Amino acid sequence: MTDLVTFGETMLRLSPPDEERLETADQYDVAVAGAESNVAVAAQRLGTDSAWLSKLPDSPVGRKVAGELRSHGVDVDVVWTDEGRQGTYYLEQGRAPRGSKVIYDRARASVTTARSSELPTESLEAATCFHTTGITPALSDTLETTTADLLSMAGDAGVTTSFDVNFRSNLWTPAEAKAVLTDLFPGVDLLVVAERDARVVLEESGDAEQIARSLDSEYGFEVVVVTRGGEGALALADGAVTTQPTYDATDAYPVGTGDSFVGGFLSQYLDGGSVADALAWGAATAALKRSVPGDMATVSPAEVRDVVEGSTEALSR
Amino acid sequence: MTDLVTFGETMLRLSPPDEERLETADQYDVAVAGAESNVAVAAQRLGTDSAWLSKLPDSPVGRKVAGELRSHGVDVDVVWTDEGRQGTYYLEQGRAPRGSKVIYDRARASVTTARSSELPTESLEAATCFHTTGITPALSDTLETTTADLLSMAGDAGVTTSFDVNFRSNLWTPAEAKAVLTDLFPGVDLLVVAERDARVVLEESGDAEQIARSLDSEYGFEVVVVTRGGEGALALADGAVTTQPTYDATDAYPVGTGDSFVGGFLSQYLDGGSVADALAWGAATAALKRSVPGDMATVSPAEVRDVVEGSTEALSR
Amino acid sequence: MTDLVTFGETMLRLSPPDEERLETADQYDVAVAGAESNVAVAAQRLGTDSAWLSKLPDSPVGRKVAGELRSHGVDVDVVWTDEGRQGTYYLEQGRAPRGSKVIYDRARASVTTARSSELPTESLEAATCFHTTGITPALSDTLETTTADLLSMAGDAGVTTSFDVNFRSNLWTPAEAKAVLTDLFPGVDLLVVAERDARVVLEESGDAEQIARSLDSEYGFEVVVVTRGGEGALALADGAVTTQPTYDATDAYPVGTGDSFVGGFLSQYLDGGSVADALAWGAATAALKRSVPGDMATVSPAEVRDVVEGSTEALSR
Amino acid sequence: MTDLVTFGETMLRLSPPDEERLETADQYDVAVAGAESNVAVAAQRLGTDSAWLSKLPDSPVGRKVAGELRSHGVDVDVVWTDEGRQGTYYLEQGRAPRGSKVIYDRARASVTTARSSELPTESLEAATCFHTTGITPALSDTLETTTADLLSMAGDAGVTTSFDVNFRSNLWTPAEAKAVLTDLFPGVDLLVVAERDARVVLEESGDAEQIARSLDSEYGFEVVVVTRGGEGALALADGAVTTQPTYDATDAYPVGTGDSFVGGFLSQYLDGGSVADALAWGAATAALKRSVPGDMATVSPAEVRDVVEGSTEALSR
Amino acid sequence: MTDLVTFGETMLRLSPPDEERLETADQYDVAVAGAESNVAVAAQRLGTDSAWLSKLPDSPVGRKVAGELRSHGVDVDVVWTDEGRQGTYYLEQGRAPRGSKVIYDRARASVTTARSSELPTESLEAATCFHTTGITPALSDTLETTTADLLSMAGDAGVTTSFDVNFRSNLWTPAEAKAVLTDLFPGVDLLVVAERDARVVLEESGDAEQIARSLDSEYGFEVVVVTRGGEGALALADGAVTTQPTYDATDAYPVGTGDSFVGGFLSQYLDGGSVADALAWGAATAALKRSVPGDMATVSPAEVRDVVEGSTEALSR
Amino acid sequence: MTDLVTFGETMLRLSPPDEERLETADQYDVAVAGAESNVAVAAQRLGTDSAWLSKLPDSPVGRKVAGELRSHGVDVDVVWTDEGRQGTYYLEQGRAPRGSKVIYDRARASVTTARSSELPTESLEAATCFHTTGITPALSDTLETTTADLLSMAGDAGVTTSFDVNFRSNLWTPAEAKAVLTDLFPGVDLLVVAERDARVVLEESGDAEQIARSLDSEYGFEVVVVTRGGEGALALADGAVTTQPTYDATDAYPVGTGDSFVGGFLSQYLDGGSVADALAWGAATAALKRSVPGDMATVSPAEVRDVVEGSTEALSR
Repeated sequence: MTDLVTFGETMLRLSPPDEERLETADQYDVAVAGAESNVAVAAQRLGTDSAWLSKLPDSPVGRKVAGELRSHGVDVDVVWTDEGRQGTYYLEQGRAPRGSKVIYDRARASVTTARSSELPTESLEAATCFHTTGITPALSDTLETTTADLLSMAGDAGVTTSFDVNFRSNLWTPAEAKAVLTDLFPGVDLLVVAERDARVVLEESGDAEQIARSLDSEYGFEVVVVTRGGEGALALADGAVTTQPTYDATDAYPVGTGDSFVGGFLSQYLDGGSVADALAWGAATAALKRSVPGDMATVSPAEVRDVVEGSTEALSR
Repeated sequence: MTDLVTFGETMLRLSPPDEERLETADQYDVAVAGAESNVAVAAQRLGTDSAWLSKLPDSPVGRKVAGELRSHGVDVDVVWTDEGRQGTYYLEQGRAPRGSKVIYDRARASVTTARSSELPTESLEAATCFHTTGITPALSDTLETTTADLLSMAGDAGVTTSFDVNFRSNLWTPAEAKAVLTDLFPGVDLLVVAERDARVVLEESGDAEQIARSLDSEYGFEVVVVTRGGEGALALADGAVTTQPTYDATDAYPVGTGDSFVGGFLSQYLDGGSVADALAWGAATAALKRSVPGDMATVSPAEVRDVVEGSTEALSR
Repeated sequence: MTDLVTFGETMLRLSPPDEERLETADQYDVAVAGAESNVAVAAQRLGTDSAWLSKLPDSPVGRKVAGELRSHGVDVDVVWTDEGRQGTYYLEQGRAPRGSKVIYDRARASVTTARSSELPTESLEAATCFHTTGITPALSDTLETTTADLLSMAGDAGVTTSFDVNFRSNLWTPAEAKAVLTDLFPGVDLLVVAERDARVVLEESGDAEQIARSLDSEYGFEVVVVTRGGEGALALADGAVTTQPTYDATDAYPVGTGDSFVGGFLSQYLDGGSVADALAWGAATAALKRSVPGDMATVSPAEVRDVVEGSTEALSR
Repeated sequence: MTDLVTFGETMLRLSPPDEERLETADQYDVAVAGAESNVAVAAQRLGTDSAWLSKLPDSPVGRKVAGELRSHGVDVDVVWTDEGRQGTYYLEQGRAPRGSKVIYDRARASVTTARSSELPTESLEAATCFHTTGITPALSDTLETTTADLLSMAGDAGVTTSFDVNFRSNLWTPAEAKAVLTDLFPGVDLLVVAERDARVVLEESGDAEQIARSLDSEYGFEVVVVTRGGEGALALADGAVTTQPTYDATDAYPVGTGDSFVGGFLSQYLDGGSVADALAWGAATAALKRSVPGDMATVSPAEVRDVVEGSTEALSR
Repeated sequence: MTDLVTFGETMLRLSPPDEERLETADQYDVAVAGAESNVAVAAQRLGTDSAWLSKLPDSPVGRKVAGELRSHGVDVDVVWTDEGRQGTYYLEQGRAPRGSKVIYDRARASVTTARSSELPTESLEAATCFHTTGITPALSDTLETTTADLLSMAGDAGVTTSFDVNFRSNLWTPAEAKAVLTDLFPGVDLLVVAERDARVVLEESGDAEQIARSLDSEYGFEVVVVTRGGEGALALADGAVTTQPTYDATDAYPVGTGDSFVGGFLSQYLDGGSVADALAWGAATAALKRSVPGDMATVSPAEVRDVVEGSTEALSR
Repeated sequence: MTDLVTFGETMLRLSPPDEERLETADQYDVAVAGAESNVAVAAQRLGTDSAWLSKLPDSPVGRKVAGELRSHGVDVDVVWTDEGRQGTYYLEQGRAPRGSKVIYDRARASVTTARSSELPTESLEAATCFHTTGITPALSDTLETTTADLLSMAGDAGVTTSFDVNFRSNLWTPAEAKAVLTDLFPGVDLLVVAERDARVVLEESGDAEQIARSLDSEYGFEVVVVTRGGEGALALADGAVTTQPTYDATDAYPVGTGDSFVGGFLSQYLDGGSVADALAWGAATAALKRSVPGDMATVSPAEVRDVVEGSTEALSR
């Protein structure tokens, strides 16, 4: 049985090798990346049976997305379609003072036409947890409706719902995001939000704890997790606050850090771990992710445990 | 001064190295490809001052397209825009019985919004020849109008107009194509058409010569060139027919063969060469193209001359 | 539910890029390869729900094997262990007069210690078909016993058993092979054997049909398939003989051709297709395999259908 | 019209990938590099119409040099010749305590035979600025004369002349350099000199400002720019001194930093910017260069502006 | 004549490019690595005629090992055999918090069957110094005997014997190691031991000097070198202690640092240098190694001298 | 003891991967190549102790040449120098109708200054055979003298002298070559000459046998071998003619075929084999070479024997 079902878009990621520029490189590395499938991969690798729900073009590049996710053990529950295209994004890895740059090319992706009625939702209704993010409803009007439908369906089936705000300024304005997201919040049990998004999008103020308490009192979540970049994370559950610092990590491969945090968190939380353990596993998975090329946390439970326990070694042989 | 101006879309071409599959490759080679810019590159390299007219996204991948064309000496006369995206296509190189496959991802490319009024047409109006293909009007309603506008503008300025039918079945039906193209033909001086397209799209019949004569009598071209794949090519000019067989060549890199033929043909024809010489240079450039990775004929005049004169060597040192 | 379960060893395959030599190359391409998992991958990709049963080292390279198979949709039913190592093989691709060379390094692989009692055989007992090959019992005494146990278990559960003789001269002698294999044959329903192995190992004589009839009368198979390299294949079922020529194909990537044949055959046969259809799909899958790098037939049903129907194109766009 | 014309040698640069050693690597990355063309590329990319004047071997590697420069939009005004060879240099990227190493292989390069009478100097005489460096006259006696001729020709045509001392100890001694360079200085309007070269070659003393004032009073420059490595740069113009610190930057790809500084400086200075703005753009272009593989500043005006304005982001999406 | 002969196992090292993971990489870089041959390579490159004694499989991968060592000028004195296999190891390069990981796959390597009677020991008996490490006797019972035999043979021939403790916890326990090694020590003249191994395996205590004095008084070595990681090294010879700090170096490629230290030390020591000079060359060679990919110190005497003399430059041209 | 000593230039070979063009490739593969060292490598690999005598620049690229030759077991007897440069050549691999192209960049190579007095000729004087080619005296006046000196020195020491005419039209004219070579012939025992060179350079006529007899009668060789490309080879020794056809082989990597022939021939001839055996080994080594990238025959005796005996297999496992 599947413990975790996530829903959203997964893209091909095209990036020049090493630190070459998009403009001048003759080869691009091809990876597979999407906020919600990143979460499923991290959770699956850490022991949570996970599935990813979506709609993909019936083409070699669509199959590439499915194959990559399956290779990590994630079930791929998708509608195959001739509608739309495979979304992609270009990533150029930078170094100071040249920043890393992401250019999205996701318009008209097949997933933007996905309706809840066509999706294979059997595993969702039997799962322990359903997770999606604020990117999904931002992608199309259809997906805004579908996101609401799936949250409802999960709620009706007694499935815990998890939601990461994940604001993307190139998809919508803070005001548009706030309107849509706050409509969805009543159906959400576990909210993850970056402190910055809480301020800019949800117009919260005060420190991280005040933000968590304010969101909780307004929308009535089971758990609120506020992530604070290099400052760590904080969770409010049953009125109690738990904090977690970040673990030391390279900044070599930062893309996907947030999703890895959520995947690590859920793997413990859904397994019955304490909020403190869940935060620790989230932070450790996120730290490890930063040492791994690509968007996904291709890590093992033993590696996460070593970080949590402070027993990593520079060279083990 | 520019001798040849071409107009159309140029895409990024993404293809797995060697004979790997799109689905399983971890890197894609990145090239730059478009029927009309392919013609400009071939002609420029063979001594014809050439320019390419278009509209590109103001992004690293748009600049990549411009840089690649410039590297061959082609002038890049483009509008830079935030509208639309950089069109791409996926190419998988096959081997019998697995064929090579092209997956276009060109919807909503920036060029599809290009209007004649915004394009930098100074060099077009001062050129010797203007060239475009049947792909361009198929890409959007806007481009259908723009193609007609540019052909008119060229005609008014006394510039020879050249047009390659280049039917693409994934862009429109034969009937749609016929309706649009035959509307454009009165403004065309030099027509290039594959025998197969003449039959399927233009509904011509008979042998290649009959097709050329029929098209000429119907639309009144200066020159009609009918290309016949492995059977060579035939030109009708001033009532006289000239034929040209193909030169022996590998079939390793077939994509771009037709555009290289046109580039080679024009390089001689615009330089005052006879139709026979132009056909020979077209065929030789096409043959050389098939030995070169990528869509473009990165060849030199000496190499083309060696093929025409039959003086190529397997190893020269 | 799983239709097909296969059992055997899967190795890492290390091969120099292009036609470089093992001795002088500085990089090796890494692939995943094994006769029985190759069959599962081909069948899965052609629509048969497939699983692979085995024992793998609990290490990154063991996980690599599992991940690659999963990426094709195959269920990986394995015991993870600290016993033994990940088997590997070196492949050097040749060109006349230098042949391709395989160097096996599979001694003490984890799978050689696999006992039926420790394997997760639930899906096997519920499957439509169980498949293994003559390589498996040759790898260790333990595996000889386990192979027999699994064939029995399948027979008891009413699961069709399929067996490919696949003689490997570096693992055992023809006499040793004959003794072990003929002990297993009574538990086998569908036998696949290369004509050459039938002669050298099973000491059969006559033409392919005579070989099939002789094997059938001796051991009482449901179906006997005799593969004949470039000469095609022949099946004997219910006393009737069906023949199938090979399809034209490159000889670029021959390793895995036989397994792809079996995967293609089973995908049709288990789906209720006729023996003639199964042979055609086997032959077409084998032909396509030869155009694909690696050991596995990473093909689609549409591609196989095109080969069977003779409707492949050199370039489709 | 061309704003900036530069003159000098451009080489092929051969360097092992990553941090491999020249001795043991099996592949070399191939780039194009030359002090004067580096300046032209940086300036062109930042909005200054630029051309590069030189002499190249009529060979694929000579054409490679031209193609690379053209790809950045630089006009390539060269004599093609059969005299001499394509100069190259080997670069090995190091890490402490192993330094990066350059091995020049530029003897007998075609450019060393370039006489002013054979060069296509039309654009030089119509330009706003002519730039060359102390490397050029060091390469051959012929080039010493040609450098003097071109500076004269520029002076006569009212073109501003810019000169970067760029002392290379493997080409000549400080004494030889001083003799030749000080002969050229009367024809130079804008001098760029590293503080170290000013001391070692020009035998100046005191701090950077004293060096600038001393050089100015001795040779009467319009502007003197003294570059000080990590200490920033200082310009003396119209008696006033302006200073500019360096911007924080990686030291990953230091080769070409100085040329990028000059290109950035000229792009602003020739556009009518203040000396302070020109120094800031010079410093920002230099900082960005250090994050980009290769010798050239493949950057955009927006990126430079972000550095100058302090608005770079580690990850923009 | 050969100055230094080393004896031990050399493996193929398989590692993903850059910082990719073993599980997900599609190519592995192939290097050659072994504690004793690493020492021979470092010493040979620094001017000591060196040979490596061993037993290799007669296969392309065995020949690869020999070829790589020969390329550095080391004589390869090996028995070629059909017994056993080529040992390998997998290396995954990490970044904090993900450590680098080594997975050995060396069981049943050909060398584990090497008997002194079959080895070509002519050069050993005529050498100045014989070196091996604690890894060798740990690999098999046969090698335990052979190591003792060769030390005896060297002693009898008046050859200085050098031994690096090099404890590997995956090969044996500290107690097993202590028993075997202390049996060998009476035949050893020059002992190299990491401070940590001295404590854990040899059960020494106190500071590095106390450890050296205690080992010396117990076993009577000519020289004892205690290496202390980032703390430098210390040597006890003729009752006098000499210390050497480490030189600043990157931690990019740490594997092989210790062997490079020994190679650098011996190159000076065997050439008649003082213990202080030998320590300095050891430390400098070790520092340079850390900047070079692979296990071996592919450095030159000039580079080592520059480090010792503090005259390295970040960029020399 | 060394059986074979060869003398000549060895270059770095720079070639784009696959079939890319020199002009557009971003990486070049780096190999090591030279007619005389190619012979030494082939002979060494086939069992003849071989050395290569030359002069190399004391630089990483000079050391690369030495290292590569040593990796095949060849002794490298060179003077290390600061005079001159490392010669290189560019190779572009073609396909019909585009031929493969070689661009030499060997002017001023260090070897062109090599005098016999400075070369380490001890092994030459103790060898069984000395071999060089017509390329060497063509490289410089100094080398013309040195070649004569070494042939004399060998003759005086009773060493068999072998000479391959190897005419290169880009180094000298046929008339120049004839004058120099025929002066050297009296000191040559074994002459290898391509039929085409015999006609064009040595002005011989008639068929291959007539050429051999005419050369023999004119210059008094011990053996004359005439190579005839695809037509095989012919040897005249003691008045008797032996012929050898070519073995079937790919034409994938033709560069170095002739040198491999000579290496294979000498390996048998110097070992006391018959002229017929020597021709067969020459032809088989040449055939295998054509399947191997690079200039050198990286083959084994077993592979050559398989070709001679007709027992090669397309896939051995």
